[in-house]
Amino acid sequence: MSQRRGLLIILSSPSGAGKSTLSRALRDWDPTIRFSVSATTRSPRPGEIDGQDYHFLTEDQFKRDVASGEMLEHAHVFGNFYGSPKGPVQAAIDAGQDVLFDIDWQGAQQIRNSALGAHTLSIFILPPSITELHRRLVSRDQDSPDVIARRMQKSWDEISHWDGYDFVLVNDDLTKTTADLKTIVTATRLRRLQQPALMDHVRNLQLEFEDLT
Amino acid sequence: MSQRRGLLIILSSPSGAGKSTLSRALRDWDPTIRFSVSATTRSPRPGEIDGQDYHFLTEDQFKRDVASGEMLEHAHVFGNFYGSPKGPVQAAIDAGQDVLFDIDWQGAQQIRNSALGAHTLSIFILPPSITELHRRLVSRDQDSPDVIARRMQKSWDEISHWDGYDFVLVNDDLTKTTADLKTIVTATRLRRLQQPALMDHVRNLQLEFEDLT
Repeated sequence: MSQRRGLLIILSSPSGAGKSTLSRALRDWDPTIRFSVSATTRSPRPGEIDGQDYHFLTEDQFKRDVASGEMLEHAHVFGNFYGSPKGPVQAAIDAGQDVLFDIDWQGAQQIRNSALGAHTLSIFILPPSITELHRRLVSRDQDSPDVIARRMQKSWDEISHWDGYDFVLVNDDLTKTTADLKTIVTATRLRRLQQPALMDHVRNLQLEFEDLT
Repeated sequence: MSQRRGLLIILSSPSGAGKSTLSRALRDWDPTIRFSVSATTRSPRPGEIDGQDYHFLTEDQFKRDVASGEMLEHAHVFGNFYGSPKGPVQAAIDAGQDVLFDIDWQGAQQIRNSALGAHTLSIFILPPSITELHRRLVSRDQDSPDVIARRMQKSWDEISHWDGYDFVLVNDDLTKTTADLKTIVTATRLRRLQQPALMDHVRNLQLEFEDLT
Protein backbone atom coordinates (compact mmCIF):
# COMPACT_ATOMS: atom_id res chain seq x y z
CA MET A 1 0.00 0.00 0.00
CA SER A 2 1.09 3.53 -0.70
CA GLN A 3 2.44 5.63 2.12
CA ARG A 4 -0.39 8.08 1.60
CA ARG A 5 -3.70 8.39 -0.19
CA GLY A 6 -3.91 11.06 -2.89
CA LEU A 7 -6.16 14.10 -2.80
CA LEU A 8 -8.85 15.24 -5.20
CA ILE A 9 -7.80 18.89 -5.43
CA ILE A 10 -10.72 20.95 -6.73
CA LEU A 11 -9.99 24.44 -8.03
CA SER A 12 -12.97 26.58 -8.97
CA SER A 13 -13.31 30.25 -9.89
CA PRO A 14 -15.03 32.51 -12.36
CA SER A 15 -13.20 32.65 -15.67
CA GLY A 16 -10.43 35.22 -15.56
CA ALA A 17 -9.55 34.97 -11.86
CA GLY A 18 -6.23 33.21 -12.50
CA LYS A 19 -7.23 29.57 -12.05
CA SER A 20 -5.33 28.23 -15.10
CA THR A 21 -2.14 30.03 -14.06
CA LEU A 22 -2.46 28.65 -10.54
CA SER A 23 -3.12 25.12 -11.82
CA ARG A 24 0.06 25.27 -13.91
CA ALA A 25 2.02 26.65 -10.95
CA LEU A 26 0.89 23.69 -8.81
CA ARG A 27 1.95 21.23 -11.51
CA ASP A 28 5.32 22.95 -11.98
CA TRP A 29 5.86 22.73 -8.21
CA ASP A 30 4.95 19.03 -8.07
CA PRO A 31 4.83 17.24 -11.44
CA THR A 32 3.31 14.12 -9.81
CA ILE A 33 0.01 16.02 -9.54
CA ARG A 34 -2.24 14.85 -12.38
CA PHE A 35 -4.90 16.81 -14.19
CA SER A 36 -8.27 15.12 -14.41
CA VAL A 37 -9.12 14.82 -18.11
CA SER A 38 -12.84 15.42 -18.65
CA ALA A 39 -15.06 13.31 -20.86
CA THR A 40 -17.36 15.07 -23.30
CA THR A 41 -19.84 14.33 -26.05
CA ARG A 42 -19.01 17.44 -28.03
CA SER A 43 -16.91 17.11 -31.20
CA PRO A 44 -13.15 17.61 -31.02
CA ARG A 45 -11.98 21.05 -32.14
CA PRO A 46 -9.01 21.31 -34.49
CA GLY A 47 -5.83 20.31 -32.66
CA GLU A 48 -7.56 18.69 -29.68
CA ILE A 49 -6.20 15.25 -28.78
CA ASP A 50 -8.43 12.47 -27.47
CA GLY A 51 -7.36 11.38 -23.98
CA GLN A 52 -5.31 14.52 -23.45
CA ASP A 53 -7.60 17.51 -23.93
CA TYR A 54 -10.76 15.45 -23.45
CA HIS A 55 -12.00 11.90 -23.60
CA PHE A 56 -14.34 12.20 -26.57
CA LEU A 57 -17.33 9.90 -26.12
CA THR A 58 -20.56 9.27 -27.97
CA GLU A 59 -23.73 10.17 -26.12
CA ASP A 60 -24.49 6.45 -25.68
CA GLN A 61 -21.08 5.75 -24.16
CA PHE A 62 -21.40 8.77 -21.89
CA LYS A 63 -24.85 7.82 -20.63
CA ARG A 64 -23.73 4.24 -20.03
CA ASP A 65 -20.78 5.50 -17.93
CA VAL A 66 -23.09 7.73 -15.91
CA ALA A 67 -25.53 4.85 -15.35
CA SER A 68 -22.78 2.52 -14.14
CA GLY A 69 -21.37 5.11 -11.72
CA GLU A 70 -18.26 5.70 -13.82
CA MET A 71 -18.64 9.50 -13.73
CA LEU A 72 -17.61 11.29 -10.53
CA GLU A 73 -19.64 14.28 -11.70
CA HIS A 74 -21.31 15.32 -14.90
CA ALA A 75 -23.35 18.15 -16.39
CA HIS A 76 -25.27 18.99 -19.54
CA VAL A 77 -24.10 22.32 -20.97
CA PHE A 78 -25.39 23.88 -24.21
CA GLY A 79 -26.49 20.51 -25.59
CA ASN A 80 -23.34 18.54 -24.70
CA PHE A 81 -22.41 16.32 -21.78
CA TYR A 82 -19.27 16.86 -19.73
CA GLY A 83 -18.01 14.72 -16.88
CA SER A 84 -15.06 13.46 -14.83
CA PRO A 85 -14.34 9.71 -15.27
CA LYS A 86 -13.82 7.99 -11.93
CA GLY A 87 -11.42 5.14 -12.87
CA PRO A 88 -8.22 7.15 -13.42
CA VAL A 89 -8.92 9.24 -10.30
CA GLN A 90 -9.39 6.18 -8.07
CA ALA A 91 -6.21 4.59 -9.47
CA ALA A 92 -4.19 7.77 -8.91
CA ILE A 93 -5.27 8.43 -5.33
CA ASP A 94 -4.78 4.75 -4.40
CA ALA A 95 -1.21 5.12 -5.71
CA GLY A 96 -0.72 8.22 -3.54
CA GLN A 97 -1.01 10.76 -6.35
CA ASP A 98 -3.11 13.90 -6.20
CA VAL A 99 -5.55 14.72 -8.99
CA LEU A 100 -6.35 18.32 -9.88
CA PHE A 101 -9.88 19.21 -11.05
CA ASP A 102 -10.52 22.44 -12.87
CA ILE A 103 -14.31 22.39 -12.59
CA ASP A 104 -17.22 24.64 -11.71
CA TRP A 105 -19.32 24.70 -8.54
CA GLN A 106 -21.74 22.06 -9.81
CA GLY A 107 -18.98 19.54 -10.43
CA ALA A 108 -17.33 20.44 -7.12
CA GLN A 109 -20.61 19.86 -5.31
CA GLN A 110 -21.09 16.44 -6.91
CA ILE A 111 -17.54 15.28 -6.14
CA ARG A 112 -17.69 16.51 -2.52
CA ASN A 113 -20.86 14.47 -2.07
CA SER A 114 -19.55 11.37 -3.86
CA ALA A 115 -17.93 8.27 -2.33
CA LEU A 116 -14.55 10.01 -2.72
CA GLY A 117 -15.81 13.15 -0.95
CA ALA A 118 -13.66 12.57 2.15
CA HIS A 119 -10.53 12.89 0.03
CA THR A 120 -11.33 16.20 -1.60
CA LEU A 121 -9.56 19.48 -0.96
CA SER A 122 -11.64 22.26 -2.47
CA ILE A 123 -10.32 25.73 -3.12
CA PHE A 124 -12.16 28.68 -4.62
CA ILE A 125 -10.26 31.55 -6.24
CA LEU A 126 -11.93 34.95 -5.97
CA PRO A 127 -10.91 37.94 -8.10
CA PRO A 128 -9.92 41.15 -6.30
CA SER A 129 -12.62 42.97 -8.29
CA ILE A 130 -15.41 42.42 -10.82
CA THR A 131 -14.26 45.38 -12.89
CA GLU A 132 -11.10 43.53 -13.86
CA LEU A 133 -13.03 40.36 -14.83
CA HIS A 134 -15.35 42.48 -16.96
CA ARG A 135 -12.45 44.29 -18.65
CA ARG A 136 -10.92 40.94 -19.64
CA LEU A 137 -14.17 39.61 -21.11
CA VAL A 138 -14.71 42.81 -23.10
CA SER A 139 -11.14 43.01 -24.41
CA ARG A 140 -10.68 39.39 -25.47
CA ASP A 141 -13.96 39.00 -27.31
CA GLN A 142 -15.63 40.65 -30.24
CA ASP A 143 -18.89 39.54 -28.74
CA SER A 144 -22.11 41.43 -28.44
CA PRO A 145 -23.05 43.14 -25.18
CA ASP A 146 -25.66 40.38 -24.75
CA VAL A 147 -23.05 37.63 -24.83
CA ILE A 148 -20.79 39.55 -22.45
CA ALA A 149 -23.70 40.15 -20.08
CA ARG A 150 -24.44 36.41 -20.10
CA ARG A 151 -20.81 35.61 -19.29
CA MET A 152 -20.78 38.12 -16.46
CA GLN A 153 -23.93 36.50 -15.11
CA LYS A 154 -22.18 33.12 -15.27
CA SER A 155 -19.19 34.57 -13.38
CA TRP A 156 -21.46 35.87 -10.67
CA ASP A 157 -23.30 32.52 -10.43
CA GLU A 158 -19.93 30.86 -9.92
CA ILE A 159 -18.79 33.37 -7.28
CA SER A 160 -22.06 33.00 -5.38
CA HIS A 161 -21.03 29.43 -4.48
CA TRP A 162 -17.77 30.46 -2.79
CA ASP A 163 -18.94 29.33 0.64
CA GLY A 164 -19.09 25.61 -0.17
CA TYR A 165 -15.28 25.38 -0.42
CA ASP A 166 -12.71 24.46 2.23
CA PHE A 167 -10.46 27.36 1.29
CA VAL A 168 -11.20 30.63 -0.50
CA LEU A 169 -8.27 32.72 -1.73
CA VAL A 170 -8.55 36.26 -3.05
CA ASN A 171 -6.06 36.33 -5.92
CA ASP A 172 -4.78 39.90 -5.62
CA ASP A 173 -1.12 38.81 -5.60
CA LEU A 174 -0.24 35.78 -7.73
CA THR A 175 2.99 35.04 -5.84
CA LYS A 176 1.21 35.08 -2.48
CA THR A 177 -1.75 33.03 -3.77
CA THR A 178 0.60 30.43 -5.26
CA ALA A 179 2.52 30.16 -1.97
CA ASP A 180 -0.74 29.80 -0.03
CA LEU A 181 -1.91 27.05 -2.41
CA LYS A 182 1.30 25.07 -1.90
CA THR A 183 1.06 25.39 1.90
CA ILE A 184 -2.57 24.22 1.80
CA VAL A 185 -1.76 21.20 -0.36
CA THR A 186 1.31 20.31 1.75
CA ALA A 187 -0.71 20.43 4.98
CA THR A 188 -3.74 18.61 3.60
CA ARG A 189 -1.55 15.71 2.48
CA LEU A 190 -0.81 15.20 6.20
CA ARG A 191 -4.52 14.95 7.06
CA ARG A 192 -5.41 11.75 8.93
CA LEU A 193 -7.63 10.51 6.10
CA GLN A 194 -4.75 10.75 3.62
CA GLN A 195 -2.50 8.55 5.81
CA PRO A 196 -3.71 4.93 5.53
CA ALA A 197 -0.46 3.70 7.16
CA LEU A 198 -1.58 5.20 10.50
CA MET A 199 -3.97 2.31 11.09
CA ASP A 200 -1.05 -0.15 10.74
CA HIS A 201 1.06 1.92 13.10
CA VAL A 202 -1.67 1.94 15.75
CA ARG A 203 -2.11 -1.84 15.35
CA ASN A 204 1.61 -2.27 16.02
CA LEU A 205 1.39 -0.04 19.10
CA GLN A 206 -1.48 -2.18 20.35
CA LEU A 207 0.53 -5.40 19.90
CA GLU A 208 3.44 -3.84 21.79
CA PHE A 209 1.08 -2.72 24.53
CA GLU A 210 -0.39 -6.20 24.88
CA ASP A 211 3.10 -7.72 25.08
CA LEU A 212 4.10 -5.34 27.86
CA THR A 213 1.01 -5.69 30.05
CA MET B 1 -13.34 43.15 12.83
CA SER B 2 -10.16 41.16 12.85
CA GLN B 3 -8.70 40.06 9.53
CA ARG B 4 -9.05 36.47 10.63
CA ARG B 5 -10.73 34.35 13.29
CA GLY B 6 -8.43 32.45 15.65
CA LEU B 7 -8.21 28.68 15.88
CA LEU B 8 -8.72 26.38 18.84
CA ILE B 9 -5.63 24.23 18.35
CA ILE B 10 -6.08 20.96 20.23
CA LEU B 11 -2.99 18.84 20.87
CA SER B 12 -3.53 15.43 22.43
CA SER B 13 -1.24 12.47 22.99
CA PRO B 14 -0.36 9.90 25.61
CA SER B 15 2.05 11.27 28.18
CA GLY B 16 5.64 10.98 26.99
CA ALA B 17 5.00 11.35 23.25
CA GLY B 18 6.51 14.84 23.06
CA LYS B 19 3.40 17.00 23.32
CA SER B 20 4.85 19.54 25.78
CA THR B 21 7.97 20.02 23.67
CA LEU B 22 5.83 20.51 20.56
CA SER B 23 3.54 23.00 22.36
CA ARG B 24 6.55 25.07 23.37
CA ALA B 25 7.96 24.89 19.84
CA LEU B 26 4.66 26.27 18.46
CA ARG B 27 4.72 29.13 20.97
CA ASP B 28 8.36 29.93 20.23
CA TRP B 29 7.50 30.03 16.54
CA ASP B 30 4.50 32.32 17.06
CA PRO B 31 4.29 34.02 20.48
CA THR B 32 0.78 35.31 19.71
CA ILE B 33 -0.54 31.76 20.24
CA ARG B 34 -2.04 31.57 23.72
CA PHE B 35 -2.20 28.59 26.01
CA SER B 36 -5.64 27.82 27.40
CA VAL B 37 -5.32 27.92 31.21
CA SER B 38 -7.49 25.20 32.76
CA ALA B 39 -9.75 25.69 35.74
CA THR B 40 -9.58 23.15 38.56
CA THR B 41 -11.04 22.48 41.99
CA ARG B 42 -7.89 20.80 43.29
CA SER B 43 -5.63 22.71 45.69
CA PRO B 44 -2.64 24.63 44.35
CA ARG B 45 0.66 22.82 44.69
CA PRO B 46 3.71 24.72 46.02
CA GLY B 47 4.84 27.25 43.40
CA GLU B 48 1.66 27.11 41.28
CA ILE B 49 0.27 30.53 40.40
CA ASP B 50 -3.48 31.17 40.14
CA GLY B 51 -4.44 32.31 36.63
CA GLN B 52 -1.16 31.10 35.17
CA ASP B 53 -0.81 27.39 35.98
CA TYR B 54 -4.53 26.97 36.68
CA HIS B 55 -7.59 28.99 37.59
CA PHE B 56 -8.21 27.62 41.09
CA LEU B 57 -11.94 27.49 41.78
CA THR B 58 -14.12 26.18 44.58
CA GLU B 59 -16.42 23.30 43.67
CA ASP B 60 -19.40 25.68 43.87
CA GLN B 61 -17.81 28.17 41.48
CA PHE B 62 -16.85 25.39 39.11
CA LYS B 63 -20.32 23.86 39.05
CA ARG B 64 -21.89 27.28 38.54
CA ASP B 65 -19.60 27.89 35.52
CA VAL B 66 -20.51 24.51 34.04
CA ALA B 67 -24.24 25.18 34.57
CA SER B 68 -24.04 28.58 32.86
CA GLY B 69 -22.13 27.18 29.87
CA GLU B 70 -18.88 28.88 30.85
CA MET B 71 -16.83 25.67 30.46
CA LEU B 72 -15.95 24.59 26.93
CA GLU B 73 -15.21 21.13 28.31
CA HIS B 74 -14.81 19.62 31.74
CA ALA B 75 -14.08 16.31 33.45
CA HIS B 76 -14.02 14.80 36.91
CA VAL B 77 -10.67 13.10 37.56
CA PHE B 78 -9.66 11.44 40.86
CA GLY B 79 -12.16 13.52 42.87
CA ASN B 80 -11.35 16.90 41.29
CA PHE B 81 -12.92 18.90 38.49
CA TYR B 82 -10.92 20.20 35.55
CA GLY B 83 -12.20 22.35 32.71
CA SER B 84 -11.45 24.94 30.00
CA PRO B 85 -13.12 28.34 30.62
CA LYS B 86 -14.83 29.66 27.50
CA GLY B 87 -14.57 33.45 27.98
CA PRO B 88 -10.84 33.93 27.32
CA VAL B 89 -10.99 31.55 24.34
CA GLN B 90 -13.90 33.38 22.71
CA ALA B 91 -12.16 36.76 23.26
CA ALA B 92 -8.88 35.48 21.79
CA ILE B 93 -10.33 33.91 18.63
CA ASP B 94 -12.56 36.98 18.00
CA ALA B 95 -9.34 39.05 18.13
CA GLY B 96 -7.70 36.70 15.61
CA GLN B 97 -5.49 34.86 18.08
CA ASP B 98 -5.12 31.10 18.23
CA VAL B 99 -5.52 29.24 21.51
CA LEU B 100 -3.60 26.05 22.20
CA PHE B 101 -5.26 23.29 24.25
CA ASP B 102 -3.18 20.58 25.84
CA ILE B 103 -6.06 18.23 26.70
CA ASP B 104 -7.02 14.57 26.48
CA TRP B 105 -9.45 12.89 24.10
CA GLN B 106 -12.48 13.57 26.31
CA GLY B 107 -11.83 17.31 26.35
CA ALA B 108 -11.07 17.29 22.63
CA GLN B 109 -14.35 15.50 21.93
CA GLN B 110 -16.35 18.03 23.97
CA ILE B 111 -14.71 21.05 22.30
CA ARG B 112 -15.13 19.62 18.80
CA ASN B 113 -18.83 19.19 19.52
CA SER B 114 -19.28 22.61 21.15
CA ALA B 115 -20.49 25.84 19.56
CA LEU B 116 -16.84 26.64 18.74
CA GLY B 117 -16.32 23.23 17.11
CA ALA B 118 -16.05 24.67 13.60
CA HIS B 119 -12.96 26.61 14.63
CA THR B 120 -10.99 23.71 16.05
CA LEU B 121 -7.87 22.20 14.57
CA SER B 122 -7.22 18.91 16.33
CA ILE B 123 -3.89 17.10 16.18
CA PHE B 124 -2.95 13.83 17.82
CA ILE B 125 0.70 12.95 18.48
CA LEU B 126 1.52 9.24 18.36
CA PRO B 127 4.75 7.79 19.75
CA PRO B 128 6.92 5.72 17.41
CA SER B 129 6.68 2.82 19.89
CA ILE B 130 5.07 1.79 23.18
CA THR B 131 8.36 0.42 24.49
CA GLU B 132 9.77 3.93 24.67
CA LEU B 133 6.70 5.28 26.50
CA HIS B 134 6.98 2.42 28.98
CA ARG B 135 10.68 3.01 29.54
CA ARG B 136 10.00 6.66 30.40
CA LEU B 137 7.26 5.83 32.86
CA VAL B 138 9.46 3.22 34.58
CA SER B 139 12.54 5.45 34.74
CA ARG B 140 10.93 8.65 35.99
CA ASP B 141 8.84 7.11 38.76
CA GLN B 142 9.54 5.14 41.87
CA ASP B 143 6.06 3.77 41.51
CA SER B 144 4.81 0.25 42.01
CA PRO B 145 4.22 -2.01 38.98
CA ASP B 146 0.49 -1.54 39.65
CA VAL B 147 0.69 2.23 39.25
CA ILE B 148 2.82 1.90 36.14
CA ALA B 149 0.39 -0.63 34.66
CA ARG B 150 -2.47 1.82 35.31
CA ARG B 151 -0.58 4.61 33.57
CA MET B 152 0.17 2.37 30.60
CA GLN B 153 -3.53 1.54 30.42
CA LYS B 154 -4.30 5.28 30.43
CA SER B 155 -1.79 5.81 27.60
CA TRP B 156 -3.44 3.12 25.53
CA ASP B 157 -6.92 4.53 26.21
CA GLU B 158 -5.66 7.87 24.92
CA ILE B 159 -4.04 6.34 21.80
CA SER B 160 -7.21 4.40 21.01
CA HIS B 161 -8.95 7.73 20.25
CA TRP B 162 -6.45 8.76 17.56
CA ASP B 163 -9.02 8.55 14.80
CA GLY B 164 -11.18 11.43 16.01
CA TYR B 165 -8.51 14.01 15.13
CA ASP B 166 -8.02 16.04 11.94
CA PHE B 167 -4.30 15.27 11.86
CA VAL B 168 -2.26 12.47 13.42
CA LEU B 169 1.53 12.80 13.50
CA VAL B 170 3.92 10.01 14.45
CA ASN B 171 6.62 11.83 16.43
CA ASP B 172 9.67 9.82 15.38
CA ASP B 173 11.64 12.94 14.41
CA LEU B 174 11.03 16.06 16.49
CA THR B 175 12.35 18.44 13.81
CA LYS B 176 10.09 16.93 11.15
CA THR B 177 7.06 16.83 13.46
CA THR B 178 7.59 20.48 14.46
CA ALA B 179 7.84 21.52 10.81
CA ASP B 180 4.67 19.57 9.97
CA LEU B 181 2.82 21.23 12.87
CA LYS B 182 3.77 24.71 11.64
CA THR B 183 2.66 23.89 8.09
CA ILE B 184 -0.66 22.56 9.37
CA VAL B 185 -1.31 25.66 11.51
CA THR B 186 -0.27 28.02 8.69
CA ALA B 187 -2.61 26.32 6.21
CA THR B 188 -5.54 26.00 8.61
CA ARG B 189 -5.43 29.73 9.33
CA LEU B 190 -6.31 30.17 5.64
CA ARG B 191 -9.42 27.97 5.93
CA ARG B 192 -12.59 29.72 4.79
CA LEU B 193 -14.14 29.59 8.27
CA GLN B 194 -11.17 31.48 9.73
CA GLN B 195 -11.56 34.33 7.23
CA PRO B 196 -14.59 36.41 8.21
CA ALA B 197 -13.49 39.21 5.85
CA LEU B 198 -14.35 37.00 2.85
CA MET B 199 -18.07 37.70 3.30
CA ASP B 200 -17.39 41.44 3.02
CA HIS B 201 -15.25 40.90 -0.06
CA VAL B 202 -18.01 38.91 -1.78
CA ARG B 203 -20.56 41.61 -0.87
CA ASN B 204 -18.33 44.18 -2.55
CA LEU B 205 -18.01 41.99 -5.64
CA GLN B 206 -21.79 41.74 -5.77
CA LEU B 207 -22.20 45.52 -5.59
CA GLU B 208 -19.68 45.92 -8.41
CA PHE B 209 -21.50 43.28 -10.44
CA GLU B 210 -24.84 45.04 -9.98
CA ASP B 211 -23.30 48.37 -11.04
CA LEU B 212 -21.93 46.84 -14.23
CA THR B 213 -25.05 44.96 -15.35
